[in-house]
Amino acid sequence: MKLFGRIAIIGVGLIGGSIGLAIKKRMVANEVVGVFRRQSTMRKALKRRAVDRGTLDIREGVKDADLIIIATPVSLIPDMASRAAKFAGENAVITDAGSTKAWIVDSVEKKFGKTAGPYFVGSHPMAGSEQGGVESATAGLLEGSPCIITKTGKTNRSALDKVARFWRALGASVKIMSPQAHDRSVSIVSHLPHIVAFGLAGATPAKELGCAAEGFRDTTRVASSDPELWADILTTNKKEIAEAAKLFDAYYKDIMKAVKGSRRNDVVRLLAKAKSKRDKLVYGKR
Amino acid sequence: MKLFGRIAIIGVGLIGGSIGLAIKKRMVANEVVGVFRRQSTMRKALKRRAVDRGTLDIREGVKDADLIIIATPVSLIPDMASRAAKFAGENAVITDAGSTKAWIVDSVEKKFGKTAGPYFVGSHPMAGSEQGGVESATAGLLEGSPCIITKTGKTNRSALDKVARFWRALGASVKIMSPQAHDRSVSIVSHLPHIVAFGLAGATPAKELGCAAEGFRDTTRVASSDPELWADILTTNKKEIAEAAKLFDAYYKDIMKAVKGSRRNDVVRLLAKAKSKRDKLVYGKR
Repeated sequence: MKLFGRIAIIGVGLIGGSIGLAIKKRMVANEVVGVFRRQSTMRKALKRRAVDRGTLDIREGVKDADLIIIATPVSLIPDMASRAAKFAGENAVITDAGSTKAWIVDSVEKKFGKTAGPYFVGSHPMAGSEQGGVESATAGLLEGSPCIITKTGKTNRSALDKVARFWRALGASVKIMSPQAHDRSVSIVSHLPHIVAFGLAGATPAKELGCAAEGFRDTTRVASSDPELWADILTTNKKEIAEAAKLFDAYYKDIMKAVKGSRRNDVVRLLAKAKSKRDKLVYGKR
Repeated sequence: MKLFGRIAIIGVGLIGGSIGLAIKKRMVANEVVGVFRRQSTMRKALKRRAVDRGTLDIREGVKDADLIIIATPVSLIPDMASRAAKFAGENAVITDAGSTKAWIVDSVEKKFGKTAGPYFVGSHPMAGSEQGGVESATAGLLEGSPCIITKTGKTNRSALDKVARFWRALGASVKIMSPQAHDRSVSIVSHLPHIVAFGLAGATPAKELGCAAEGFRDTTRVASSDPELWADILTTNKKEIAEAAKLFDAYYKDIMKAVKGSRRNDVVRLLAKAKSKRDKLVYGKR
Protein backbone atom coordinates (compact mmCIF):
# COMPACT_ATOMS: atom_id res chain seq x y z
CA MET A 1 0.00 0.00 0.00
CA LYS A 2 1.24 3.45 -0.85
CA LEU A 3 1.85 6.08 1.80
CA PHE A 4 -0.83 8.39 0.37
CA GLY A 5 -3.92 8.00 -1.76
CA ARG A 6 -4.19 11.34 -3.50
CA ILE A 7 -1.73 14.21 -3.31
CA ALA A 8 -2.53 17.65 -4.69
CA ILE A 9 0.25 20.04 -5.73
CA ILE A 10 -0.74 23.68 -6.07
CA GLY A 11 1.79 25.43 -8.30
CA VAL A 12 3.74 23.06 -10.51
CA GLY A 13 7.02 24.80 -11.35
CA LEU A 14 10.56 23.62 -10.65
CA ILE A 15 9.82 22.54 -7.07
CA GLY A 16 6.20 21.41 -7.48
CA GLY A 17 7.10 19.54 -10.66
CA SER A 18 10.10 17.86 -9.04
CA ILE A 19 7.92 16.80 -6.11
CA GLY A 20 5.37 15.33 -8.54
CA LEU A 21 8.05 13.42 -10.45
CA ALA A 22 9.56 12.12 -7.21
CA ILE A 23 6.16 10.97 -5.88
CA LYS A 24 5.62 8.99 -9.07
CA LYS A 25 9.15 7.58 -9.21
CA ARG A 26 9.11 6.51 -5.57
CA MET A 27 5.47 5.40 -5.67
CA VAL A 28 4.51 7.50 -2.66
CA ALA A 29 0.88 8.09 -3.74
CA ASN A 30 -1.75 6.54 -5.98
CA GLU A 31 -2.48 9.80 -7.72
CA VAL A 32 -0.96 13.26 -8.08
CA VAL A 33 -3.23 16.14 -9.05
CA GLY A 34 -1.77 19.46 -10.16
CA VAL A 35 -3.53 22.78 -9.62
CA PHE A 36 -2.48 25.40 -12.17
CA ARG A 37 -2.96 29.06 -12.88
CA ARG A 38 -2.20 28.73 -16.56
CA GLN A 39 -3.32 26.22 -19.16
CA SER A 40 0.10 26.40 -20.83
CA THR A 41 1.92 25.28 -17.69
CA MET A 42 -0.63 22.50 -17.17
CA ARG A 43 0.11 21.18 -20.67
CA LYS A 44 3.85 21.19 -20.00
CA ALA A 45 3.45 19.45 -16.64
CA LEU A 46 1.20 16.76 -18.10
CA LYS A 47 3.61 16.22 -20.98
CA ARG A 48 6.44 15.77 -18.50
CA ARG A 49 4.19 13.45 -16.43
CA ALA A 50 4.94 15.55 -13.34
CA VAL A 51 1.24 15.10 -12.40
CA ASP A 52 -1.36 12.49 -13.32
CA ARG A 53 -4.01 15.07 -14.02
CA GLY A 54 -4.36 18.81 -13.86
CA THR A 55 -7.00 21.43 -13.17
CA LEU A 56 -7.27 25.20 -13.01
CA ASP A 57 -9.90 24.88 -10.26
CA ILE A 58 -8.49 24.62 -6.76
CA ARG A 59 -11.76 23.19 -5.39
CA GLU A 60 -11.63 20.31 -7.83
CA GLY A 61 -7.88 19.92 -7.33
CA VAL A 62 -7.85 19.43 -3.57
CA LYS A 63 -10.99 17.27 -3.44
CA ASP A 64 -10.32 14.03 -1.55
CA ALA A 65 -6.60 14.79 -1.32
CA ASP A 66 -4.81 13.33 1.72
CA LEU A 67 -1.94 15.75 1.35
CA ILE A 68 -1.90 19.18 -0.29
CA ILE A 69 1.42 20.81 -1.12
CA ILE A 70 1.52 24.49 -1.95
CA ALA A 71 4.52 25.21 -4.16
CA THR A 72 3.58 28.67 -5.43
CA PRO A 73 5.70 31.81 -4.95
CA VAL A 74 6.00 32.71 -1.26
CA SER A 75 3.65 35.71 -1.32
CA LEU A 76 0.71 33.57 -2.52
CA ILE A 77 1.10 30.71 -0.04
CA PRO A 78 -1.02 31.95 2.92
CA ASP A 79 -3.94 32.78 0.64
CA MET A 80 -3.65 29.47 -1.22
CA ALA A 81 -3.56 27.63 2.11
CA SER A 82 -6.85 29.29 3.18
CA ARG A 83 -8.51 28.46 -0.09
CA ALA A 84 -7.25 24.88 -0.05
CA ALA A 85 -8.45 24.47 3.55
CA LYS A 86 -11.93 25.64 2.61
CA PHE A 87 -12.33 22.88 0.03
CA ALA A 88 -10.23 20.11 1.58
CA GLY A 89 -11.48 17.28 3.74
CA GLU A 90 -11.09 17.50 7.53
CA ASN A 91 -8.37 14.83 7.54
CA ALA A 92 -6.30 16.43 4.82
CA VAL A 93 -2.92 17.85 5.75
CA ILE A 94 -1.71 20.99 4.02
CA THR A 95 1.96 21.87 3.70
CA ASP A 96 4.06 24.16 1.52
CA ALA A 97 7.48 24.50 -0.07
CA GLY A 98 8.17 28.17 0.65
CA SER A 99 11.68 29.45 1.33
CA THR A 100 10.66 31.62 4.30
CA LYS A 101 8.64 30.25 7.17
CA ALA A 102 7.74 32.67 9.99
CA TRP A 103 5.75 35.00 7.75
CA ILE A 104 3.94 32.09 6.04
CA VAL A 105 3.25 30.05 9.18
CA ASP A 106 2.13 33.10 11.20
CA SER A 107 -0.19 34.22 8.41
CA VAL A 108 -1.69 30.75 8.00
CA GLU A 109 -2.11 30.14 11.73
CA LYS A 110 -4.03 33.42 12.07
CA LYS A 111 -6.40 32.31 9.30
CA PHE A 112 -6.87 28.70 10.35
CA GLY A 113 -9.06 27.47 13.16
CA LYS A 114 -7.11 26.03 16.09
CA THR A 115 -8.86 22.81 16.92
CA ALA A 116 -10.21 21.11 13.81
CA GLY A 117 -8.60 19.98 10.57
CA PRO A 118 -7.43 20.35 7.91
CA TYR A 119 -4.12 21.13 9.57
CA PHE A 120 -1.25 23.14 8.16
CA VAL A 121 2.44 22.31 8.68
CA GLY A 122 5.15 24.49 7.14
CA SER A 123 7.89 22.89 5.04
CA HIS A 124 10.93 24.06 3.17
CA PRO A 125 12.57 21.49 0.89
CA MET A 126 16.01 23.04 0.44
CA ALA A 127 16.72 22.26 -3.15
CA GLY A 128 16.38 24.27 -6.27
CA SER A 129 18.09 25.58 -9.31
CA GLU A 130 18.56 28.96 -10.87
CA GLN A 131 16.61 27.48 -13.81
CA GLY A 132 12.94 27.67 -12.91
CA GLY A 133 9.82 26.07 -14.39
CA VAL A 134 8.45 22.56 -14.69
CA GLU A 135 10.79 22.10 -17.72
CA SER A 136 13.72 21.99 -15.28
CA ALA A 137 12.02 19.69 -12.76
CA THR A 138 13.72 16.37 -11.98
CA ALA A 139 12.70 13.42 -9.83
CA GLY A 140 16.05 13.54 -8.04
CA LEU A 141 16.03 17.21 -7.04
CA LEU A 142 15.14 16.56 -3.41
CA GLU A 143 17.18 13.39 -2.93
CA GLY A 144 19.70 13.91 -0.17
CA SER A 145 18.71 17.55 0.31
CA PRO A 146 17.75 19.03 3.68
CA CYS A 147 14.03 19.61 4.21
CA ILE A 148 13.01 21.72 7.16
CA ILE A 149 9.59 21.21 8.74
CA THR A 150 8.34 23.82 11.18
CA LYS A 151 6.79 23.19 14.55
CA THR A 152 4.94 25.78 16.62
CA GLY A 153 2.68 25.69 19.69
CA LYS A 154 -0.25 25.25 17.31
CA THR A 155 1.20 22.46 15.16
CA ASN A 156 -0.83 19.25 15.14
CA ARG A 157 1.49 16.38 16.03
CA SER A 158 0.06 13.74 13.72
CA ALA A 159 -0.06 16.18 10.80
CA LEU A 160 3.60 16.96 11.41
CA ASP A 161 4.45 13.25 11.45
CA LYS A 162 2.62 12.74 8.18
CA VAL A 163 4.49 15.59 6.52
CA ALA A 164 7.83 14.29 7.83
CA ARG A 165 7.08 10.80 6.45
CA PHE A 166 6.23 12.38 3.12
CA TRP A 167 9.51 14.28 2.68
CA ARG A 168 11.53 11.31 3.92
CA ALA A 169 9.78 9.12 1.35
CA LEU A 170 11.05 11.54 -1.28
CA GLY A 171 14.62 11.07 -0.08
CA ALA A 172 15.02 14.36 1.78
CA SER A 173 16.81 14.68 5.11
CA VAL A 174 14.19 16.08 7.48
CA LYS A 175 14.95 18.61 10.23
CA ILE A 176 12.25 19.96 12.54
CA MET A 177 12.59 23.46 13.95
CA SER A 178 10.61 26.60 14.75
CA PRO A 179 9.79 28.97 11.90
CA GLN A 180 12.08 31.56 13.52
CA ALA A 181 15.03 29.16 13.77
CA HIS A 182 14.45 28.17 10.15
CA ASP A 183 14.45 31.78 9.01
CA ARG A 184 17.68 32.47 10.89
CA SER A 185 19.42 29.44 9.35
CA VAL A 186 18.39 30.13 5.78
CA SER A 187 19.17 33.82 6.09
CA ILE A 188 22.86 32.98 6.37
CA VAL A 189 23.11 29.81 4.25
CA SER A 190 20.76 30.83 1.45
CA HIS A 191 19.21 34.29 1.42
CA LEU A 192 22.33 36.36 2.07
CA PRO A 193 24.43 34.28 -0.39
CA HIS A 194 21.77 35.03 -3.01
CA ILE A 195 21.94 38.78 -2.27
CA VAL A 196 25.74 38.68 -2.44
CA ALA A 197 25.67 36.76 -5.73
CA PHE A 198 23.15 39.23 -7.19
CA GLY A 199 25.37 42.04 -5.86
CA LEU A 200 28.50 40.64 -7.55
CA ALA A 201 26.78 40.03 -10.88
CA GLY A 202 25.04 43.40 -10.79
CA ALA A 203 28.23 45.29 -9.94
CA THR A 204 30.33 43.74 -12.70
CA PRO A 205 30.74 46.02 -15.73
CA ALA A 206 29.44 44.16 -18.81
CA LYS A 207 32.77 44.58 -20.62
CA GLU A 208 34.59 42.60 -17.91
CA LEU A 209 32.36 39.52 -18.26
CA GLY A 210 34.60 38.18 -21.06
CA CYS A 211 37.31 37.54 -18.48
CA ALA A 212 34.98 35.63 -16.15
CA ALA A 213 36.15 32.08 -15.44
CA GLU A 214 34.77 29.24 -13.33
CA GLY A 215 35.18 31.09 -10.03
CA PHE A 216 32.88 33.91 -11.13
CA ARG A 217 30.45 31.45 -12.69
CA ASP A 218 30.01 29.47 -9.49
CA THR A 219 30.01 32.41 -7.11
CA THR A 220 27.26 34.15 -9.10
CA ARG A 221 25.29 31.12 -10.36
CA VAL A 222 22.26 31.80 -8.17
CA ALA A 223 22.09 35.37 -9.54
CA SER A 224 20.33 33.77 -12.52
CA SER A 225 17.40 32.92 -10.22
CA ASP A 226 13.96 34.43 -10.74
CA PRO A 227 13.88 38.05 -9.44
CA GLU A 228 10.15 37.94 -8.64
CA LEU A 229 10.41 34.77 -6.55
CA TRP A 230 13.44 36.09 -4.73
CA ALA A 231 11.94 39.52 -4.05
CA ASP A 232 9.18 37.65 -2.19
CA ILE A 233 11.58 35.48 -0.26
CA LEU A 234 13.92 38.30 0.74
CA THR A 235 11.26 40.81 1.79
CA THR A 236 9.47 38.21 3.94
CA ASN A 237 12.68 37.45 5.85
CA LYS A 238 14.24 40.88 6.05
CA LYS A 239 14.85 40.96 9.80
CA GLU A 240 16.92 37.76 9.86
CA ILE A 241 18.71 38.75 6.65
CA ALA A 242 19.79 42.01 8.30
CA GLU A 243 21.28 39.98 11.18
CA ALA A 244 23.05 37.61 8.79
CA ALA A 245 24.41 40.58 6.86
CA LYS A 246 26.04 41.88 10.06
CA LEU A 247 28.02 38.63 10.33
CA PHE A 248 29.05 38.73 6.68
CA ASP A 249 29.85 42.44 6.64
CA ALA A 250 32.18 42.06 9.61
CA TYR A 251 34.11 39.12 8.12
CA TYR A 252 34.26 40.67 4.65
CA LYS A 253 35.51 43.99 6.04
CA ASP A 254 38.15 42.21 8.12
CA ILE A 255 39.54 40.54 5.00
CA MET A 256 39.41 43.79 3.02
CA LYS A 257 41.25 45.70 5.75
CA ALA A 258 43.94 43.04 6.07
CA VAL A 259 44.42 43.05 2.28
CA LYS A 260 44.54 46.86 2.19
CA GLY A 261 47.15 46.89 4.97
CA SER A 262 49.13 44.07 3.29
CA ARG A 263 48.90 42.19 6.58
CA ARG A 264 49.61 38.86 4.91
CA ASN A 265 49.41 36.75 8.08
CA ASP A 266 45.99 38.17 8.93
CA VAL A 267 44.76 37.52 5.39
CA VAL A 268 45.95 33.91 5.58
CA ARG A 269 44.33 33.43 9.00
CA LEU A 270 40.95 34.80 7.85
CA LEU A 271 40.94 32.82 4.61
CA ALA A 272 42.06 29.64 6.38
CA LYS A 273 39.25 29.91 8.95
CA ALA A 274 36.73 30.36 6.12
CA LYS A 275 38.24 27.46 4.19
CA SER A 276 38.00 25.13 7.18
CA LYS A 277 34.24 25.74 7.30
CA ARG A 278 33.73 25.41 3.57
CA ASP A 279 35.84 22.25 3.40
CA LYS A 280 33.28 20.51 5.63
CA LEU A 281 30.92 20.63 2.65
CA VAL A 282 33.37 19.50 -0.01
CA TYR A 283 32.53 15.84 -0.26
CA GLY A 284 29.19 14.66 -1.57
CA LYS A 285 25.95 16.39 -0.96
CA ARG A 286 26.08 16.21 2.83
CA MET B 1 57.33 19.63 -36.44
CA LYS B 2 56.27 20.65 -33.00
CA LEU B 3 55.83 24.27 -31.99
CA PHE B 4 58.58 24.06 -29.34
CA GLY B 5 61.59 21.90 -28.71
CA ARG B 6 61.97 22.00 -24.95
CA ILE B 7 59.63 23.68 -22.49
CA ALA B 8 60.53 24.12 -18.81
CA ILE B 9 57.84 24.49 -16.17
CA ILE B 10 58.96 25.95 -12.85
CA GLY B 11 56.44 24.97 -10.19
CA VAL B 12 54.36 21.94 -11.11
CA GLY B 13 51.14 22.19 -9.09
CA LEU B 14 47.57 22.35 -10.38
CA ILE B 15 48.34 24.92 -13.09
CA GLY B 16 51.90 23.88 -13.96
CA GLY B 17 50.87 20.23 -14.01
CA SER B 18 47.84 20.92 -16.19
CA ILE B 19 50.04 22.87 -18.61
CA GLY B 20 52.46 19.94 -18.76
CA LEU B 21 49.68 17.43 -19.41
CA ALA B 22 48.18 19.67 -22.11
CA ILE B 23 51.56 20.14 -23.85
CA LYS B 24 51.97 16.36 -24.03
CA LYS B 25 48.38 15.69 -25.10
CA ARG B 26 48.43 18.33 -27.82
CA MET B 27 52.05 17.58 -28.83
CA VAL B 28 53.13 21.19 -28.48
CA ALA B 29 56.77 20.40 -27.54
CA ASN B 30 59.29 17.59 -27.86
CA GLU B 31 60.12 17.64 -24.18
CA VAL B 32 58.72 19.07 -20.95
CA VAL B 33 61.09 19.56 -18.02
CA GLY B 34 59.74 20.28 -14.55
CA VAL B 35 61.65 22.31 -11.97
CA PHE B 36 60.66 21.40 -8.41
CA ARG B 37 61.27 22.55 -4.89
CA ARG B 38 60.42 19.22 -3.33
CA GLN B 39 61.41 15.68 -4.29
CA SER B 40 57.94 14.45 -3.22
CA THR B 41 56.14 16.71 -5.71
CA MET B 42 58.58 15.69 -8.43
CA ARG B 43 57.72 12.05 -7.84
CA LYS B 44 53.99 12.77 -8.06
CA ALA B 45 54.40 14.82 -11.25
CA LEU B 46 56.51 12.15 -12.93
CA LYS B 47 54.03 9.47 -11.92
CA ARG B 48 51.22 11.51 -13.47
CA ARG B 49 53.42 12.11 -16.54
CA ALA B 50 52.81 15.84 -16.23
CA VAL B 51 56.51 16.31 -17.17
CA ASP B 52 58.99 14.12 -19.07
CA ARG B 53 61.73 14.68 -16.54
CA GLY B 54 62.23 16.64 -13.36
CA THR B 55 64.98 18.41 -11.49
CA LEU B 56 65.43 20.40 -8.29
CA ASP B 57 68.09 22.52 -9.99
CA ILE B 58 66.74 25.51 -11.88
CA ARG B 59 69.97 25.88 -13.88
CA GLU B 60 69.67 22.35 -15.19
CA GLY B 61 65.91 22.73 -15.68
CA VAL B 62 65.95 25.77 -17.95
CA LYS B 63 69.01 24.72 -19.98
CA ASP B 64 68.23 24.80 -23.72
CA ALA B 65 64.56 25.50 -23.08
CA ASP B 66 62.78 27.51 -25.78
CA LEU B 67 60.00 28.47 -23.42
CA ILE B 68 60.07 28.73 -19.63
CA ILE B 69 56.79 28.92 -17.72
CA ILE B 70 56.81 30.02 -14.09
CA ALA B 71 53.80 28.57 -12.32
CA THR B 72 54.83 29.11 -8.70
CA PRO B 73 52.87 31.14 -6.14
CA VAL B 74 52.68 34.81 -7.17
CA SER B 75 55.14 36.13 -4.58
CA LEU B 76 57.97 33.93 -5.93
CA ILE B 77 57.52 34.70 -9.63
CA PRO B 78 59.77 37.80 -10.05
CA ASP B 79 62.66 36.11 -8.28
CA MET B 80 62.20 32.87 -10.25
CA ALA B 81 62.11 34.88 -13.49
CA SER B 82 65.47 36.49 -12.66
CA ARG B 83 67.05 33.19 -11.81
CA ALA B 84 65.65 31.51 -14.92
CA ALA B 85 66.90 34.41 -17.09
CA LYS B 86 70.39 34.02 -15.67
CA PHE B 87 70.63 30.41 -16.83
CA ALA B 88 68.47 30.49 -19.97
CA GLY B 89 69.68 30.94 -23.53
CA GLU B 90 69.34 34.34 -25.19
CA ASN B 91 66.51 33.18 -27.44
CA ALA B 92 64.44 31.67 -24.65
CA VAL B 93 61.14 33.29 -23.76
CA ILE B 94 60.00 33.37 -20.16
CA THR B 95 56.37 33.67 -19.14
CA ASP B 96 54.34 32.98 -16.02
CA ALA B 97 50.90 31.89 -14.86
CA GLY B 98 50.35 34.32 -12.01
CA SER B 99 46.93 35.70 -11.12
CA THR B 100 48.09 39.30 -10.74
CA LYS B 101 50.12 41.04 -13.39
CA ALA B 102 51.18 44.66 -12.69
CA TRP B 103 53.23 43.76 -9.59
CA ILE B 104 54.87 40.79 -11.34
CA VAL B 105 55.54 42.50 -14.68
CA ASP B 106 56.84 45.71 -13.05
CA SER B 107 59.14 43.73 -10.77
CA VAL B 108 60.48 41.62 -13.61
CA GLU B 109 60.96 44.55 -16.00
CA LYS B 110 63.02 46.38 -13.38
CA LYS B 111 65.28 43.33 -13.03
CA PHE B 112 65.62 42.46 -16.71
CA GLY B 113 67.80 44.21 -19.26
CA LYS B 114 65.84 46.13 -21.87
CA THR B 115 67.47 45.20 -25.15
CA ALA B 116 68.73 41.63 -25.13
CA GLY B 117 66.98 38.32 -24.44
CA PRO B 118 65.81 36.24 -22.79
CA TYR B 119 62.56 38.18 -22.83
CA PHE B 120 59.73 38.05 -20.31
CA VAL B 121 56.02 38.24 -21.20
CA GLY B 122 53.39 38.07 -18.47
CA SER B 123 50.53 35.56 -18.76
CA HIS B 124 47.49 34.61 -16.75
CA PRO B 125 45.70 31.45 -17.83
CA MET B 126 42.32 31.94 -16.17
CA ALA B 127 41.51 28.46 -15.07
CA GLY B 128 41.84 26.74 -11.79
CA SER B 129 40.14 24.80 -9.11
CA GLU B 130 39.77 25.12 -5.39
CA GLN B 131 41.60 21.76 -5.29
CA GLY B 132 45.30 22.46 -5.68
CA GLY B 133 48.32 20.29 -6.41
CA VAL B 134 49.54 18.24 -9.35
CA GLU B 135 47.13 15.47 -8.20
CA SER B 136 44.25 17.64 -9.43
CA ALA B 137 45.91 18.65 -12.72
CA THR B 138 44.09 17.78 -15.95
CA ALA B 139 45.05 18.15 -19.62
CA GLY B 140 41.75 19.90 -20.31
CA LEU B 141 41.92 22.57 -17.59
CA LEU B 142 42.86 25.39 -19.97
CA GLU B 143 40.72 24.32 -22.92
CA GLY B 144 38.27 27.09 -23.76
CA SER B 145 39.42 29.25 -20.84
CA PRO B 146 40.48 32.87 -21.22
CA CYS B 147 44.23 33.48 -21.07
CA ILE B 148 45.41 37.04 -20.70
CA ILE B 149 48.84 38.04 -22.01
CA THR B 150 50.23 41.39 -20.96
CA LYS B 151 51.85 43.95 -23.21
CA THR B 152 53.84 46.95 -22.01
CA GLY B 153 56.15 49.49 -23.66
CA LYS B 154 58.99 47.09 -22.95
CA THR B 155 57.41 43.91 -24.30
CA ASN B 156 59.32 42.26 -27.14
CA ARG B 157 56.90 41.71 -30.00
CA SER B 158 58.17 38.36 -31.21
CA ALA B 159 58.34 37.00 -27.65
CA LEU B 160 54.71 38.04 -27.18
CA ASP B 161 53.71 36.29 -30.41
CA LYS B 162 55.47 33.12 -29.29
CA VAL B 163 53.67 33.15 -25.95
CA ALA B 164 50.32 33.78 -27.65
CA ARG B 165 50.91 30.84 -30.02
CA PHE B 166 51.73 28.67 -27.04
CA TRP B 167 48.53 29.35 -25.08
CA ARG B 168 46.41 29.05 -28.23
CA ALA B 169 48.02 25.68 -28.91
CA LEU B 170 46.79 24.62 -25.48
CA GLY B 171 43.22 25.59 -26.40
CA ALA B 172 43.01 28.83 -24.43
CA SER B 173 41.29 31.94 -25.74
CA VAL B 174 44.02 34.61 -25.74
CA LYS B 175 43.42 38.27 -24.89
CA ILE B 176 46.21 40.85 -24.91
CA MET B 177 46.04 43.80 -22.52
CA SER B 178 48.14 45.96 -20.24
CA PRO B 179 49.03 44.59 -16.78
CA GLN B 180 46.88 47.36 -15.27
CA ALA B 181 43.84 46.53 -17.41
CA HIS B 182 44.29 42.85 -16.49
CA ASP B 183 44.41 43.63 -12.80
CA ARG B 184 41.27 45.74 -13.04
CA SER B 185 39.36 42.99 -14.87
CA VAL B 186 40.34 40.18 -12.55
CA SER B 187 39.73 42.30 -9.45
CA ILE B 188 36.00 42.28 -10.23
CA VAL B 189 35.56 38.89 -11.93
CA SER B 190 37.89 36.86 -9.73
CA HIS B 191 39.60 38.46 -6.74
CA LEU B 192 36.58 40.16 -5.20
CA PRO B 193 34.33 37.10 -5.74
CA HIS B 194 36.95 35.09 -3.85
CA ILE B 195 36.96 37.57 -0.96
CA VAL B 196 33.17 37.54 -0.86
CA ALA B 197 33.07 33.73 -0.92
CA PHE B 198 35.64 33.57 1.89
CA GLY B 199 33.59 36.18 3.74
CA LEU B 200 30.36 34.17 3.44
CA ALA B 201 31.97 30.90 4.49
CA GLY B 202 33.86 32.55 7.34
CA ALA B 203 30.77 34.36 8.64
CA THR B 204 28.53 31.29 8.70
CA PRO B 205 28.14 29.78 12.18
CA ALA B 206 29.28 26.14 12.05
CA LYS B 207 25.92 24.92 13.40
CA GLU B 208 24.09 26.38 10.38
CA LEU B 209 26.17 24.47 7.83
CA GLY B 210 23.82 21.49 8.09
CA CYS B 211 21.14 23.54 6.33
CA ALA B 212 23.46 24.51 3.47
CA ALA B 213 22.15 23.44 0.05
CA GLU B 214 23.46 23.82 -3.50
CA GLY B 215 23.22 27.62 -3.50
CA PHE B 216 25.60 27.95 -0.57
CA ARG B 217 27.89 25.29 -1.99
CA ASP B 218 28.33 27.07 -5.30
CA THR B 219 28.52 30.58 -3.92
CA THR B 220 31.29 29.58 -1.49
CA ARG B 221 33.10 26.90 -3.55
CA VAL B 222 36.20 29.02 -4.12
CA ALA B 223 36.49 29.57 -0.35
CA SER B 224 38.10 26.10 -0.33
CA SER B 225 41.05 27.58 -2.26
CA ASP B 226 44.55 27.72 -0.79
CA PRO B 227 44.81 30.63 1.71
CA GLU B 228 48.56 31.11 1.13
CA LEU B 229 48.20 31.38 -2.64
CA TRP B 230 45.28 33.75 -2.30
CA ALA B 231 46.93 35.94 0.30
CA ASP B 232 49.67 36.53 -2.31
CA ILE B 233 47.21 37.26 -5.09
CA LEU B 234 45.04 39.60 -3.06
CA THR B 235 47.81 41.63 -1.46
CA THR B 236 49.54 42.17 -4.82
CA ASN B 237 46.34 43.59 -6.34
CA LYS B 238 44.95 45.52 -3.42
CA LYS B 239 44.41 48.84 -5.19
CA GLU B 240 42.23 47.41 -7.94
CA ILE B 241 40.40 45.18 -5.45
CA ALA B 242 39.51 48.25 -3.40
CA GLU B 243 38.00 49.83 -6.53
CA ALA B 244 36.07 46.67 -7.39
CA ALA B 245 34.80 46.52 -3.80
CA LYS B 246 33.30 49.99 -4.20
CA LEU B 247 31.19 48.73 -7.12
CA PHE B 248 30.08 45.63 -5.21
CA ASP B 249 29.44 47.46 -1.94
CA ALA B 250 27.18 49.97 -3.68
CA TYR B 251 25.09 47.31 -5.44
CA TYR B 252 24.91 45.06 -2.39
CA LYS B 253 23.83 47.95 -0.15
CA ASP B 254 21.17 49.02 -2.65
CA ILE B 255 19.65 45.52 -2.55
CA MET B 256 19.86 45.40 1.26
CA LYS B 257 18.17 48.80 1.62
CA ALA B 258 15.38 47.89 -0.80
CA VAL B 259 14.80 44.61 1.10
CA LYS B 260 14.84 46.40 4.45
CA GLY B 261 12.31 48.95 3.18
CA SER B 262 10.16 46.19 1.61
CA ARG B 263 10.41 48.13 -1.66
CA ARG B 264 9.53 45.08 -3.72
CA ASN B 265 9.71 46.79 -7.12
CA ASP B 266 13.20 48.08 -6.39
CA VAL B 267 14.31 44.63 -5.24
CA VAL B 268 12.97 43.07 -8.45
CA ARG B 269 14.65 45.73 -10.59
CA LEU B 270 18.07 45.27 -8.91
CA LEU B 271 17.89 41.47 -9.04
CA ALA B 272 16.70 41.50 -12.67
CA LYS B 273 19.57 43.74 -13.76
CA ALA B 274 22.06 41.41 -12.04
CA LYS B 275 20.36 38.35 -13.56
CA SER B 276 20.57 39.80 -17.07
CA LYS B 277 24.36 40.04 -16.70
CA ARG B 278 24.77 36.61 -15.17
CA ASP B 279 22.52 35.02 -17.78
CA LYS B 280 25.04 35.98 -20.46
CA LEU B 281 27.34 33.35 -18.95
CA VAL B 282 24.79 30.57 -18.61
CA TYR B 283 25.49 28.56 -21.70
CA GLY B 284 28.78 26.74 -22.18
CA LYS B 285 32.08 27.99 -20.96
CA ARG B 286 31.95 31.31 -22.80
